[in-house]
Amino acid sequence: MVYAENVDNSQKVVERSQSHSKKKKIVVLGTGWAGTSFLKDMDISSYDVEVVSPRNYFAFTPLLPSVTCGTVEARSVVEPVRNIIKKRNGEIQFWEAECLKIDPENHKVICRSIVENLVGENDFSLEYDHLVVAVGAQVNTFDTPGVMEHCHFLKEVEDAQKIRRTVIDCFEKAVLPGLSEEERRTDLHFVIVGGGPTGVEFAAELHDFIHEDLVQLYPSVKDLVKITVIQSGDHILNTFDERISCFAESKFQRDGIEVLTGCRVVSVSEHSVNMKVKSTGEYVIVPHGMVVWSTGVGTRPFVRDFMEQVGQGKRWILATDEWLRVKGCPDVYAIGDCATVDQRKIMEDILTIFEAADTDHSGTLTIEEFQDVLEDIIIRYPQVELYLKSKHLFEVTELFKDSEGNEREEVDIEGFKSALSHVDSQMKSLPATAQVAAQQGSYLASCFNRWEKCNTNPEGPRVFGSAGRHAFLPFTYRHLGQFAPLGGSKAAAELPGDWISMGRSTQWLWYSVYAR
Amino acid sequence: MVYAENVDNSQKVVERSQSHSKKKKIVVLGTGWAGTSFLKDMDISSYDVEVVSPRNYFAFTPLLPSVTCGTVEARSVVEPVRNIIKKRNGEIQFWEAECLKIDPENHKVICRSIVENLVGENDFSLEYDHLVVAVGAQVNTFDTPGVMEHCHFLKEVEDAQKIRRTVIDCFEKAVLPGLSEEERRTDLHFVIVGGGPTGVEFAAELHDFIHEDLVQLYPSVKDLVKITVIQSGDHILNTFDERISCFAESKFQRDGIEVLTGCRVVSVSEHSVNMKVKSTGEYVIVPHGMVVWSTGVGTRPFVRDFMEQVGQGKRWILATDEWLRVKGCPDVYAIGDCATVDQRKIMEDILTIFEAADTDHSGTLTIEEFQDVLEDIIIRYPQVELYLKSKHLFEVTELFKDSEGNEREEVDIEGFKSALSHVDSQMKSLPATAQVAAQQGSYLASCFNRWEKCNTNPEGPRVFGSAGRHAFLPFTYRHLGQFAPLGGSKAAAELPGDWISMGRSTQWLWYSVYAR
Repeated sequence: MVYAENVDNSQKVVERSQSHSKKKKIVVLGTGWAGTSFLKDMDISSYDVEVVSPRNYFAFTPLLPSVTCGTVEARSVVEPVRNIIKKRNGEIQFWEAECLKIDPENHKVICRSIVENLVGENDFSLEYDHLVVAVGAQVNTFDTPGVMEHCHFLKEVEDAQKIRRTVIDCFEKAVLPGLSEEERRTDLHFVIVGGGPTGVEFAAELHDFIHEDLVQLYPSVKDLVKITVIQSGDHILNTFDERISCFAESKFQRDGIEVLTGCRVVSVSEHSVNMKVKSTGEYVIVPHGMVVWSTGVGTRPFVRDFMEQVGQGKRWILATDEWLRVKGCPDVYAIGDCATVDQRKIMEDILTIFEAADTDHSGTLTIEEFQDVLEDIIIRYPQVELYLKSKHLFEVTELFKDSEGNEREEVDIEGFKSALSHVDSQMKSLPATAQVAAQQGSYLASCFNRWEKCNTNPEGPRVFGSAGRHAFLPFTYRHLGQFAPLGGSKAAAELPGDWISMGRSTQWLWYSVYAR
Repeated sequence: MVYAENVDNSQKVVERSQSHSKKKKIVVLGTGWAGTSFLKDMDISSYDVEVVSPRNYFAFTPLLPSVTCGTVEARSVVEPVRNIIKKRNGEIQFWEAECLKIDPENHKVICRSIVENLVGENDFSLEYDHLVVAVGAQVNTFDTPGVMEHCHFLKEVEDAQKIRRTVIDCFEKAVLPGLSEEERRTDLHFVIVGGGPTGVEFAAELHDFIHEDLVQLYPSVKDLVKITVIQSGDHILNTFDERISCFAESKFQRDGIEVLTGCRVVSVSEHSVNMKVKSTGEYVIVPHGMVVWSTGVGTRPFVRDFMEQVGQGKRWILATDEWLRVKGCPDVYAIGDCATVDQRKIMEDILTIFEAADTDHSGTLTIEEFQDVLEDIIIRYPQVELYLKSKHLFEVTELFKDSEGNEREEVDIEGFKSALSHVDSQMKSLPATAQVAAQQGSYLASCFNRWEKCNTNPEGPRVFGSAGRHAFLPFTYRHLGQFAPLGGSKAAAELPGDWISMGRSTQWLWYSVYAR
C-alpha cells in the first residue's frame, strides 16, 4: 500500500531539487511517438534533458504501410530528431545509442553507440534524476520458429523499404524463364500474418500496388498473384467496431485478398508457412514468396532486465501506475508501447475509501458522505464512470439501491462493497497505439513542466489513505478514433462518439489527428 | 588483317536472317547509360530484344554525388527499366539477372537470377544472334589492400545512400561523451581518393552538406570537420582544361577542402589511409572516419573470361573496332565503360591504302590521286583530321611537302609513309563517361535499325583491302562538354567549342545534355 500512494516520494524529489541549485536531469530513452511527443512538449528551462535512441529520426509509423508500396516516400515519413530538438534552443542533447542497461540503484543508464567502426569508446553511462523509458516494443514472434529468419516486419522505415524491394524481386523472379507455373504462383504468394490495423492496411496497399502498378510491368504473371491474411482470431480488425470488421472482410473478398481466420502460424520456413486451423486441429502448409509478420508486441531485453531489478520479473510487460511511474521504481517513468498502465482496482482500496468518506465515523456512509468523495473516486478509479455509463445509471444514488431495487439512505462497509463490487470489471488496458504513446509523452511533459506548481497546489485527487492530494491528475486517454485504409479510396474509420465512417477515405484528414 | 575489314562476316549474318523467316534475336547485357540508350533507340519491329541486368532500373549517375548529400532524392535519379521497355510496346523482354558467362561459340549467355531465396531454378541460358555487352566497369581498386573492405564507392544508387548514412554516423559518433578531441577529428575526417569529376563533385557536395546542414545540427564539433581529396596526378580534374583545374583548386582552398596531389594510396585500413608522397617517397598515415574511393575502372570477371575466349587475354580492357564490334568476335558488340574502341593505326594499312589510291599503278601517288581517297581515309582514320588541325594545316597538299618544305607533285610509298608517319600520334581513346556510353548505345541501335538498308547501300568508307564499302560509318563521339559542380552555386564546365564557363552554376541546364 506504501507504493500506490507514494506522494512522499515525489515530495522528496522536489526537496532534493530545491537543495541543489543546478537543474535536474531527465534522460529520455527512445524517439518514437512517446519520446518525441515528450520532447516536443518539454519546457527545458527547468531541466537538463538528454535523449538516447538508436534512431536519430522520428518515424511517422501510421504511414509505413504506404512506404512499402511507394505511395509515400520514406523521407516524407521521418523527421530528424536533431531538427526536433534544435527547435528547443539546443538545450536538449541527443546521443545516437542503444540503452544496454538501466541501473536504478545508482540512477544511471549504460549506453552503446550504434556506430561500430569509428575510433573512440563506444560505451558510456549517463546519470539521471528522472528517467523516461520510451523505447517501444520489439516484434513478438511468440517464439514461433523461423519468424526472425524468414519474415518481414513493419516496425522501422528500413523494414518498409526492404518489403518494397522484396515484392519487386518476387515479380522479377516469377517472370524468369524455366519456372513451372506452380513455382511462379509460390513466388507471387504474399502472406500477411496478423489481421490488425497494420497488417490490414499493408494488405490493402499491397493489393493496390500490385493491381495498379506491377501487373502493367509484369503482365505475363498477373493472374498468378495472391495475397493472403492469416488471423488467429475470428475476424480481422477485431479491436474495431464489428461493422468495420465486416466491411473490411467483404472489401477484401471482392478484391480477391484471402482472409484465413482462426488459424495459428506454428512455423515459417524459407518457402512456406505452417499453420494450424484451430477449429479442426489440422495443419496446413502454405507456400509463399514473402511473409510479413504483423502481430504482437514484445519486451526488449534490457527492459526485461530492469523489470527483474524492480520486482516485476513475473510480469509480461513493464507496469506503471496511473501517473506513468514504473511500479517499484517511481523515479523512472515508462510511456508508449514498452509499458502498460496498471489501473488500480477500487476493491483493493475499498476499506480506505470507506473510512475516508465516513467523516462522522458512524460506520455507515450516507449518500451525502459518498457524494463528497465521489469526484475524487472517479478521477482515481475511472472504471467507476465507465461502469455507471455501461449500466445507464445517471445518479450515484442508484448504486445505493439494495438487491431488490429499494433506495437506501446509508450503507455499511458490506453494502458499500457490494454496491461497487462490479465496477472493476470495466477496467480496460490501453491499446498499444501511436495515439496512446503520443498522449502519454505529452501528459508526462506537462507534469514535469508544472512540477513545482502542482507540488505546492496539488491538482490530483485526494489520497484516501492519508492527508493531502496527489500532485497531478492521473493520465487519461482521449480516444480520437482509429483508422484503417483498405486500398483504393476506401477506408474504415472509427471516430470518437461512435460515429463510423466507411467508404471514401479522407486519409489525409485522418493523419491530422497525429500531426501537430 | 582478315578481321579489320570483316565486311564478309556482316553480310553472312544478313544472309542468315534472310533465309529464316523469324526475327533475329538481340540480347543486351546491362541497363546503364549504354544499354538504356540502345534500348530507347531500338526499332523493335525487326528484332526480338532481350535484356539481362542485375538492376531493374536505370540510374542517372551524374546525380549520384547529389544523392549522397540529399540534394536530390534517390528516387529522382532512377527510372525503372520496365517503364522504359513498356514504352516499346512490350516487345522487349527484361530478365533481372547477372550474366555469368558468354559462350560465343554456341551463341549463348548463361545468366543467374539475383533473387536467391525464392522457389524455382536460378540459372538460365539465352541464345542470341547478336549480343550487346553493356555491363559497365566495376570499381578498380588497383589491388590496393583494404579498399574493398573499408572504402565507399560512387557507382550505384545504394552506394550513395550508404555514404549519406555514414556521414551522419560519423557526426553522431563524434558528438558522443567520452571521446578525445583527436578521436573526434578522426571520425570527422572525410577522405576522397581520386580527383576526377566524380570525386571532386562529391567533395564539393559534401562540403555544402556539412557546412549548410550538419554543423547546425552538430554545432559542438563544427570546427573539427575536415575534407581531403587525394589525387595521384599533379592536379585535380586533370582531364579538363587547365583553367578549370586551377579554378577548382583555388575554390577548394577557399572552402578549406585539402587537396593532396602527387600522392598514391598504398593501403586503406578501418581508421587510416596509408599513402606515398611521390616526390619524396615518404609514407604518410592519414586517419579517417570515412573514405570514398573514386578512381579507375575495372573489368568484370565474366568479361575477362570472354576476353580469354576471343584472344584478348593479354589486354586490360575489352577492345572493339570502330563499329563497336568485339575484336575476334564480331557478332558480339561492346559499348560503354566495359570496352574501349581500338582505333586502327593508319600506318598498319599504309601499303593497302597506297595501292588502292594508286589507281594507275605507277608506283607513285599524285596529289589528285591522294585527294580521291582522302575523304574515306578521314572517315576510317579520324586521327588524320586531328593531326591536320593540330599542325594548323588547311590543305592536304602541305603533307606532300618534303623535309625542306618544298612542294612535291607526287610521292612514292616511302614518301607517303613519311608524310603520314606522325598522324597516329593524334589517336585518342575515349573517356569512360556517361556521354560516350549513351552515344555508343544510340549509334549501335541506329546501325541495327538500318541493317538491311546499309548492307544494300553502304554508307561507310571504302574497304581499302578489297572492293566495296563498309556498311556503316564508324562510331564517332560528339563531345558535349564536361561539367563539375564545385559546391555552392559554383561549377566548372567545359563546353563544346572551347567555351569555358566558370562561376554560377547552371547545373540543371547542364543535365539537359543527358536527358532526352
